[in-house]
Amino acid sequence: MKLQHVVESQQFTVPLLMELFDRSRRMERLVARGGTHDYSNRIMATLFYEPSTRTRFSFEAAMYRLGGKVLSTEQAKVFSSEVEGEQLEDTIRILAGYSDVIVVRHNEAGGAKRAAKVSPVPVINAGDGKGGQHPTQALLDLYTIHRERKSLEGLSIAIIGELDEGRTVRSLAYLLSKFDRVKIYFVSPPEVQMKPDILQHLEEHQVWYALESDISKVLGEVDVVYQTRIRPERVADRKKLASYTLDGRLLKAMRSDAMVLHPLPRTVEIDKAVDDDPRALYFRQAKNGLFVRMALLTLVWDGE
Amino acid sequence: MKLQHVVESQQFTVPLLMELFDRSRRMERLVARGGTHDYSNRIMATLFYEPSTRTRFSFEAAMYRLGGKVLSTEQAKVFSSEVEGEQLEDTIRILAGYSDVIVVRHNEAGGAKRAAKVSPVPVINAGDGKGGQHPTQALLDLYTIHRERKSLEGLSIAIIGELDEGRTVRSLAYLLSKFDRVKIYFVSPPEVQMKPDILQHLEEHQVWYALESDISKVLGEVDVVYQTRIRPERVADRKKLASYTLDGRLLKAMRSDAMVLHPLPRTVEIDKAVDDDPRALYFRQAKNGLFVRMALLTLVWDGE
Amino acid sequence: MKLQHVVESQQFTVPLLMELFDRSRRMERLVARGGTHDYSNRIMATLFYEPSTRTRFSFEAAMYRLGGKVLSTEQAKVFSSEVEGEQLEDTIRILAGYSDVIVVRHNEAGGAKRAAKVSPVPVINAGDGKGGQHPTQALLDLYTIHRERKSLEGLSIAIIGELDEGRTVRSLAYLLSKFDRVKIYFVSPPEVQMKPDILQHLEEHQVWYALESDISKVLGEVDVVYQTRIRPERVADRKKLASYTLDGRLLKAMRSDAMVLHPLPRTVEIDKAVDDDPRALYFRQAKNGLFVRMALLTLVWDGE
Repeated sequence: MKLQHVVESQQFTVPLLMELFDRSRRMERLVARGGTHDYSNRIMATLFYEPSTRTRFSFEAAMYRLGGKVLSTEQAKVFSSEVEGEQLEDTIRILAGYSDVIVVRHNEAGGAKRAAKVSPVPVINAGDGKGGQHPTQALLDLYTIHRERKSLEGLSIAIIGELDEGRTVRSLAYLLSKFDRVKIYFVSPPEVQMKPDILQHLEEHQVWYALESDISKVLGEVDVVYQTRIRPERVADRKKLASYTLDGRLLKAMRSDAMVLHPLPRTVEIDKAVDDDPRALYFRQAKNGLFVRMALLTLVWDGE
Repeated sequence: MKLQHVVESQQFTVPLLMELFDRSRRMERLVARGGTHDYSNRIMATLFYEPSTRTRFSFEAAMYRLGGKVLSTEQAKVFSSEVEGEQLEDTIRILAGYSDVIVVRHNEAGGAKRAAKVSPVPVINAGDGKGGQHPTQALLDLYTIHRERKSLEGLSIAIIGELDEGRTVRSLAYLLSKFDRVKIYFVSPPEVQMKPDILQHLEEHQVWYALESDISKVLGEVDVVYQTRIRPERVADRKKLASYTLDGRLLKAMRSDAMVLHPLPRTVEIDKAVDDDPRALYFRQAKNGLFVRMALLTLVWDGE
Repeated sequence: MKLQHVVESQQFTVPLLMELFDRSRRMERLVARGGTHDYSNRIMATLFYEPSTRTRFSFEAAMYRLGGKVLSTEQAKVFSSEVEGEQLEDTIRILAGYSDVIVVRHNEAGGAKRAAKVSPVPVINAGDGKGGQHPTQALLDLYTIHRERKSLEGLSIAIIGELDEGRTVRSLAYLLSKFDRVKIYFVSPPEVQMKPDILQHLEEHQVWYALESDISKVLGEVDVVYQTRIRPERVADRKKLASYTLDGRLLKAMRSDAMVLHPLPRTVEIDKAVDDDPRALYFRQAKNGLFVRMALLTLVWDGE
């Protein structure tokens, strides 16, 4: 089975996820040996309608470690600035003539799907719109957990932060629902808690979850603390915000075999003092994005 | 005979055009076989004073398919922002120390010629100013016609749109005047018709032409429909604009062996319904830009 | 001895400078032979918080001539625009997972040092802040003099321009103080003369210097005329500014074996008429930046 495009996390079945994780692990070993030149004839186009240097660099580094070349734009809106009303679809059709894969970050939800529909070369979604998808982030999150724990069955996780508008945490919760005996604690000020659609999806798939607002109650229970940021303006009582920050004191409440993840960038929600703790895996998680993206590139080109 | 710089379409004689088209065809086959690494020691610098991601990507992909490397800037104006009054000439002399070819898009007519004058490495003009040149676009247009028709002698073509300020169509008309028995219909609202300088040039070279404002009168006559956009604000009676749009109905009036071209991007002047017609070659035309630019790079480096 | 990071010119001892110059010379010969593919598995990330296309291209070309690959951003501020308060340190830690060397241009003095502190891969300072360092510029200046003169001992140099805020000339004066019998003339309108801290450093190292405001008095004395620009708004009597311009007339006062250098870009301080004189070495100097940066890259990777 070949993966044609990577548009949304819903595409990924458990066997495909396991194939992806296995392949990502192989990519990790490949990079340790200096990468490969096997794909030196391939060109990636990164078409970013909004800037995201971190995500762009991760994709471009993945391409380079495979030996390939990169056409890069930080400001794809200039495509359309020349001519009002130019269509994404036309741009994709033209770029497909110049490249072997298009990594697109679009400013509207559904942008990647529109691109995939007309593209003769694989399209990979690098995030589309606030309410859209960012599947490769969710995949690298899951890979990081699987890599450390060897399994996702029976995982207990605290997902912390501004959850209602969190593209990443929504996708992560969705993907976790595919695995048995997962327990999810959503920890958040009540006004920005996880939205009903995801909760309903979890109920339908018989995933245990709890809504919490007190971080200290759950830290000792979980395998994974998945921390994200909270924009102060979204919370009624800003004085309570500090209680969601993971610091050295809260760290003591965590299990010794637990891990702290964060999609990055962070602001204040993880104290710098946490960085040196062996359970702090967020920079490792960012690096795993390289291996997962390398694995995705080889999957869309060569299949399983 | 070696081509030193590519500055304006006037440089191209008929034998040089034929050599270029022959070479472009070979590049097409080369890309189908995965490209080459023959030029892996070469560096291209793309110096774009105004953004044009499409053109830039086409040049950069051409370089990559030849095995080379690319120094890229989307916003070359930062060169001069540091220091008011910095000269293009100095920038070119510095860049020539870092690269083996400079692709320049300048915001003033004559910019490429100024660059070529001081550069010890080849300069290729990727468009300079509104009234300036964009020779590689005209060359890929001509290549597309030649590739399908095998010859340019006796060609009949309708050039449609806002013709007075159309850099592309002016260069195309100029190049067509080099071939025997060409017939050109300029189809346009009268207020934006082709300017007298080009018409005079055609007369001097005894090229048949006609000025038309009714697209339906010429569609059945021509081998090529070359469509371009019309900015609504340039036309007195905007209601008449719709009559210049090529749609499914007008398509029926075209000959079965004709082709539709467009320099892209388009807005409304070609209906999406036309895209699936086998005569719609504008995406193919964009892709041909890759092969023509590869051919130009090898010409400036290695000669004929 | 391995050079871990390149942060400030103070790091460079005389033996290390000699090793660097020797290596730069070898790089020059390597480029003449078409460069190398020895570093084709390496990735450079250029992280520019303020644009400087010239410096960026010089580093990226150096990487390409060594066979490597480049992750490039012209506008690294988008890293932090997503999230207010994001730290340079986090960005560096993430990028280090994607690359083998990070070239950073930061908008604050000390930025490169902060980056080096947390980076597991080498960091090279490409300029940090107005009052900060730009060590690779000073190194290429010195290399250019050494390359022509074979020695720095006994050098006499006129450093001309707006010297109090000149990052480049301050570093150059600092590095020159390491060599015996150097004579430095600082030539400048009095209100923008070299600051006391550098003068004091020269006195401590027993370097001969003189403060001058009349360029014609020193031109006949020196081996090197190091010209830089003066912003008109910094000078009380703008009419006197023209007297600091090096033109054909002043050139006649220079010794026949002298050389004119300039960090570029220039505005009016060197007349175009000077360009064709064999003593005008500023474009050669810019090109030397390529070789020095290649040498620095191999030094931070492989050591001496």
